[in-house]
Amino acid sequence: MDLKKNVITFTTDFGNKDYFTGAMKGVILGINPDAKFVDISHEVQSHDLWGASYLLDAASRFFPQYTIHVAVVDPGVGSERRPIIAVTDKHYFIAPDNGLLSFIYKDPGFSRVIHITADHYFLPVIGSTFHARDIFAPVAAWLSKGVEADKFGEEITDFNRFGIPSPRTESNVLTGEVVYIDKFGNCITNVSFEDIRQYVEKTGTESYRMMFKEKVVETLSPYYSSLKQGEPGIVVNGNGYLEIYVNQGDARRMLELKRGEKIQVNFG
Amino acid sequence: MDLKKNVITFTTDFGNKDYFTGAMKGVILGINPDAKFVDISHEVQSHDLWGASYLLDAASRFFPQYTIHVAVVDPGVGSERRPIIAVTDKHYFIAPDNGLLSFIYKDPGFSRVIHITADHYFLPVIGSTFHARDIFAPVAAWLSKGVEADKFGEEITDFNRFGIPSPRTESNVLTGEVVYIDKFGNCITNVSFEDIRQYVEKTGTESYRMMFKEKVVETLSPYYSSLKQGEPGIVVNGNGYLEIYVNQGDARRMLELKRGEKIQVNFG
Amino acid sequence: MDLKKNVITFTTDFGNKDYFTGAMKGVILGINPDAKFVDISHEVQSHDLWGASYLLDAASRFFPQYTIHVAVVDPGVGSERRPIIAVTDKHYFIAPDNGLLSFIYKDPGFSRVIHITADHYFLPVIGSTFHARDIFAPVAAWLSKGVEADKFGEEITDFNRFGIPSPRTESNVLTGEVVYIDKFGNCITNVSFEDIRQYVEKTGTESYRMMFKEKVVETLSPYYSSLKQGEPGIVVNGNGYLEIYVNQGDARRMLELKRGEKIQVNFG
Repeated sequence: MDLKKNVITFTTDFGNKDYFTGAMKGVILGINPDAKFVDISHEVQSHDLWGASYLLDAASRFFPQYTIHVAVVDPGVGSERRPIIAVTDKHYFIAPDNGLLSFIYKDPGFSRVIHITADHYFLPVIGSTFHARDIFAPVAAWLSKGVEADKFGEEITDFNRFGIPSPRTESNVLTGEVVYIDKFGNCITNVSFEDIRQYVEKTGTESYRMMFKEKVVETLSPYYSSLKQGEPGIVVNGNGYLEIYVNQGDARRMLELKRGEKIQVNFG
Repeated sequence: MDLKKNVITFTTDFGNKDYFTGAMKGVILGINPDAKFVDISHEVQSHDLWGASYLLDAASRFFPQYTIHVAVVDPGVGSERRPIIAVTDKHYFIAPDNGLLSFIYKDPGFSRVIHITADHYFLPVIGSTFHARDIFAPVAAWLSKGVEADKFGEEITDFNRFGIPSPRTESNVLTGEVVYIDKFGNCITNVSFEDIRQYVEKTGTESYRMMFKEKVVETLSPYYSSLKQGEPGIVVNGNGYLEIYVNQGDARRMLELKRGEKIQVNFG
Repeated sequence: MDLKKNVITFTTDFGNKDYFTGAMKGVILGINPDAKFVDISHEVQSHDLWGASYLLDAASRFFPQYTIHVAVVDPGVGSERRPIIAVTDKHYFIAPDNGLLSFIYKDPGFSRVIHITADHYFLPVIGSTFHARDIFAPVAAWLSKGVEADKFGEEITDFNRFGIPSPRTESNVLTGEVVYIDKFGNCITNVSFEDIRQYVEKTGTESYRMMFKEKVVETLSPYYSSLKQGEPGIVVNGNGYLEIYVNQGDARRMLELKRGEKIQVNFG
């Protein structure tokens, strides 16, 4: 009987300085006093849909069944862009329909998207700038109280998503790119160790070296501190992806990397 | 019977780097293990009473009945400035008596202020710098456990409050000012759309244009993204107030605005 | 019967921008849905073991019995450095064995350190960079569910700790140093008012003055605002230690202080 969906997470570009998140939580507690909040991040760079989508995906997959994730990076707030609920076999994601959930749509457990229209669940909407408080928060609260996702509106299939680059293999070169940079300056790529393992298995070629920005890295580091302090290298990170780092340094700054920077794995 | 006042919020200038808020929460959990915390903001600019007061007001009004709000921006900590509890028909506000609750005192539901003197509820006070931990936190915890507000001390009427500027109308011009700037750089004024509506209703004059810093804005934006990226405009925000913004830009920086900057609405 | 250890705190250098802490909390909620989180700080300077240790100590001592503190500043993650649980008469501390718990080991209630090896409590460890999620989080969760600390591994006695400087007395001079600088720029020293009191009691010398960086401070301030705005002074802080401050200013910047800066108390 304890099917309550009390865990609600937040991923926004609201920062931690203003009243935005506080107001949302107040609204939710007024509807569901048992709600339990986890702030994933409020420091997504303003209007950075890609970064929000990446980190929402990276964090959300570790949450228990029935968790409700509210994600708000919403430069089009108040316009015709639709508020939506995406349903997967484990979770609910409430967000504007602007591509913010693109990484979630790649989840094999992704099921459907509902366009939120049932405005009797909304707060009276004042102005056009704070749907997070007036729409997303109360919808999350009612969902957490047991209202079925389908009660909030009709399923849609023309929801927005942006392309997520996959690594490509051309002859003996696997090419990927940096997709996320964390606060330490570590640069996470979209090349997984599994990609390398599969190439090795398929071709029998066991030797490879990695390149980015004319730097060559001969071997993966078993862990960050296997290099000297200040030395750059590549490690397999906690999600199984190649991550460019500088031991106890900031790879982004020291190697002048940015999102989209190419990385190559040269086999043989 | 579930009249428990378990929700406790925090609004401070403590930042998120130090042990201050952690220690406060530890103290509270030791007294009331069922306390439920919401951090409204710890990133009020150091000693900025006005900013804290504004955002506390903007966030707190969305919290459920009996919420306890702890607000600490307290440059006078340890001096003769008084610790107080302000009671409204919905909430409790615990703070130093330095004007921090000025916006709350304007709430029509505001009832009274109690000077906290019942030091048997305090932690043993060591030093003079951390009343948040030694006084405000335990008082919040005992209040949340059901101790009546009046048990903490006597009512006072000479509490401190600072003046909050209201917009003025002179002939056909309504003049207000920027009262808060959020993390996006959006500049919130004290002119509400309701002020405009009332003027229109009273005078029959339906046309108006808005001015600030020699910029003229002819019409309100229906929503942020109704303008081109980088273009400045004015929108009615989620609390019903005129907000100067730049679509996907930082109005504060791009338009060189600051708190106190005048805005005019010219009718006819 | 309510011996549940549901309060779990976090002290890390993860920042608040990424998915790290969110993922940890998700893992814990999957194991113990009743866990209650308090973030002490995620803004420890990257890899600053000393700062993390100081603030963990300062905050943790105010938490109730059975609180579980997870502390992760872990430049050696993935290497042979050991994950440990330190047990005191009140609390549990889960951390890498890199000195991060040095201040905790000075607690008179400190009992023992367990090397965490029971990997059936871990998540499947992918990569080598995120033991916080794969090891520390699930261990905290199981500990909070009532698994005995000793079930996670064997006691060790060769755990790492760094030296913590104590003030020294030479003839009539007591010399200490700045050990922590908070967000306001206040510089906390390791000289306690109790040190001064004891010297006075032992020697009968009641007069003293304080010196740092060729500045002389004749008397302790009773509270911050007893000085004029912008004036430097020394106050006894909330933990009983001398703290160099500038009233409503930033002592670190204005006085060019840093951690390790000497302070002297000259008696007689």
